[in-house]
Amino acid sequence: MADLFTVLTPREAWSRLEPHLHPIDRVETVATAEALGRVLAEDTSAPVNLPHFARSAMDGYAVRAEDTHGATEGLPAYLKVVGEIAMGKAAGLKLSPGEAALIHTGGMLAVGADAVVMVENTRGVDTSMIEVVRPAAKGENVIQIGEDMAKGDALLPRGSLLRPQDIGSLLSLGITKVPVFERVKVALIPTGDELVPPETEPGPGQIRNTNAFALAALAAKAGAIPVVMDIVRDNYDSLKATAHNALELADVVVFSAGSSVSTRDMTARVIDSLGKPGVLVHGVSLRPGKPTILAAVGRKPVFGLPGNPASALITFGIFVTPAIHKLSGSSRPPQRFAVKAKLTRNIPSATGREDYVPVRIEEKNGEMYADPVFGKSNLLFAMIRADGVARVPLDKVGMVAGESVEITLF
Amino acid sequence: MADLFTVLTPREAWSRLEPHLHPIDRVETVATAEALGRVLAEDTSAPVNLPHFARSAMDGYAVRAEDTHGATEGLPAYLKVVGEIAMGKAAGLKLSPGEAALIHTGGMLAVGADAVVMVENTRGVDTSMIEVVRPAAKGENVIQIGEDMAKGDALLPRGSLLRPQDIGSLLSLGITKVPVFERVKVALIPTGDELVPPETEPGPGQIRNTNAFALAALAAKAGAIPVVMDIVRDNYDSLKATAHNALELADVVVFSAGSSVSTRDMTARVIDSLGKPGVLVHGVSLRPGKPTILAAVGRKPVFGLPGNPASALITFGIFVTPAIHKLSGSSRPPQRFAVKAKLTRNIPSATGREDYVPVRIEEKNGEMYADPVFGKSNLLFAMIRADGVARVPLDKVGMVAGESVEITLF
Repeated sequence: MADLFTVLTPREAWSRLEPHLHPIDRVETVATAEALGRVLAEDTSAPVNLPHFARSAMDGYAVRAEDTHGATEGLPAYLKVVGEIAMGKAAGLKLSPGEAALIHTGGMLAVGADAVVMVENTRGVDTSMIEVVRPAAKGENVIQIGEDMAKGDALLPRGSLLRPQDIGSLLSLGITKVPVFERVKVALIPTGDELVPPETEPGPGQIRNTNAFALAALAAKAGAIPVVMDIVRDNYDSLKATAHNALELADVVVFSAGSSVSTRDMTARVIDSLGKPGVLVHGVSLRPGKPTILAAVGRKPVFGLPGNPASALITFGIFVTPAIHKLSGSSRPPQRFAVKAKLTRNIPSATGREDYVPVRIEEKNGEMYADPVFGKSNLLFAMIRADGVARVPLDKVGMVAGESVEITLF
Repeated sequence: MADLFTVLTPREAWSRLEPHLHPIDRVETVATAEALGRVLAEDTSAPVNLPHFARSAMDGYAVRAEDTHGATEGLPAYLKVVGEIAMGKAAGLKLSPGEAALIHTGGMLAVGADAVVMVENTRGVDTSMIEVVRPAAKGENVIQIGEDMAKGDALLPRGSLLRPQDIGSLLSLGITKVPVFERVKVALIPTGDELVPPETEPGPGQIRNTNAFALAALAAKAGAIPVVMDIVRDNYDSLKATAHNALELADVVVFSAGSSVSTRDMTARVIDSLGKPGVLVHGVSLRPGKPTILAAVGRKPVFGLPGNPASALITFGIFVTPAIHKLSGSSRPPQRFAVKAKLTRNIPSATGREDYVPVRIEEKNGEMYADPVFGKSNLLFAMIRADGVARVPLDKVGMVAGESVEITLF
């Protein structure tokens, strides 16, 4: 146990937790049109050819390509226009040699036609005759059967986080329902003798419970379903009973802990009492967030986050959000790409520690700048003035103005 | 009217539309805890001081600062420990000169105390006596009444898009309900003789209506409430009747148009018949997306988007998403910061046209690379392989491998 209380780097801490994160296996079927942000639970493939008929990619004339061979401005090919292809119907026309049919983008090629001449490459002679001034190759401006997607082709794999274009693609193949992983449930346990519900007027020495709700909003942003439990007092038995309930109903349990050392130690003891493997990490070389606890009980990750509001938000973003994504079954997190910007001022730090500093982002002359918002770390109000947090890497003794920092938005 | 049919740059097009975009004025009251992503409809200020009592920022001892003056390792100050301050209660202790009280982070200062000495700067003598080895300044490690937020201080202004930390801050002040702007309603009108509902097996020449659902998902991502209307045939009277209904029930109307020139012109005529100012832009120097229509009827913006799926998604992102944000009342869009990456290959373009190219983003050795996904622009499947779209500016004749491009994720 002793080594658990050694302070680990954020990366070491995560690598102790990661083997205990398993995608949830509960699957439900939802309407594809309502599946934005959900994660596919099965590989999908095309049940039909798309398109299922040869379509025109242009407004123009359906032709037999060989009829246009050798056509030039000076020596055009003359074709007889035998009709117009209506949208949404079988073409109903059959082209004989020397014939063409007016066609719209998306229209179905007439029988006998194998190319479409753009209207720009034709001249009208009279209502029933056109000149084609450039030859059309066989298949030109035609989307062939199955060219977008052939029957049986792999579409979106299991683990895809569904975006608008994915929803469009599934529907275009007639896949109107999809199996998706259930959303991850995250229980948030507010603990502390000093807490009262937000709607209660706090007495002397009391404060409102707000962290659990701010963290619930972060969980919702990560695609999870948050459940805020009732406030628990700093008492081993109450804490254990609530933790037990939380593990029954949720996939992830987060203690939004009291801020003193004694309550943190109690949280760790409660977690260890609930099952194996228990506490994996107790202390991370992180500021803010040093007292963070990472743990697992059976297949469920459990977190003990610092009590101060800014620390709680930042450590949730560093550990809990990625854990939710792992559990969600998504094969990649939804927002993998951090924003980079230049620091406007020096940031002090210590080597061997990863610092997260709230920053405002400003754009000047096309460059992005990160302006640190300083403040006591326990003040939530630095966070509301910030656009995100900049990371000072472990091996840096601070960073100087002008250096490029990586920013996580929130 | 004639100049409406001149092709405008995307920026010119937007500046014709923008004067017609007015934040919606319907306000509703919601629970703060449920207000993630909503937009504040009124300025907020602190109704109380936060904290409302002097709190300790550390685990340590509440002291009278003057009792520690001159204390050193060699000549410590001796203080009598008169008790422990319980969390969540009025301190209940009064310090006389030479006395200290054990205090936890967040605990309420004892009467007479005006500083907190960190436990690291003390040594225990026996259970009722400590040595203080460093002097404490008055106010040290104390969060004063109103220091986080003073009663009456401005908190979040009208127009704030509420984030997790904002929800926490509001609740910490006891603001459990907030007035927010109603969500923007967006009606999507699928038009085309060739369309069938996604659940219907399409016959020859028919395709499934999918664009309206993909665009509905984009609208939902932008924070709006999408309403997908029934498919309308390419017929002036039906189109007009549906557009009329859509304008009654929604704040924004989007025609997901047929792809041929004739249906686009019909859409423009219908929009002009519905009211002033009518069509503002018909044609944008954009690829894909040239045939885009921007319009307004009274105070409601109306869009005619190209029929091909990739064009529809991209033009929605360029024009409709920012319009939704304007209408939402938010004082800034939620994701202002585009990702930058280096191109892996050349992208051809033409000067005087803004091109959007689907790209996959890959990270190698800490650098971000954008790999263009080429494909016929009418194929939706380029979009499902992409992480976002890269923008080739108006004044560029293409871009070369290694150049930095701006990418919008989706």
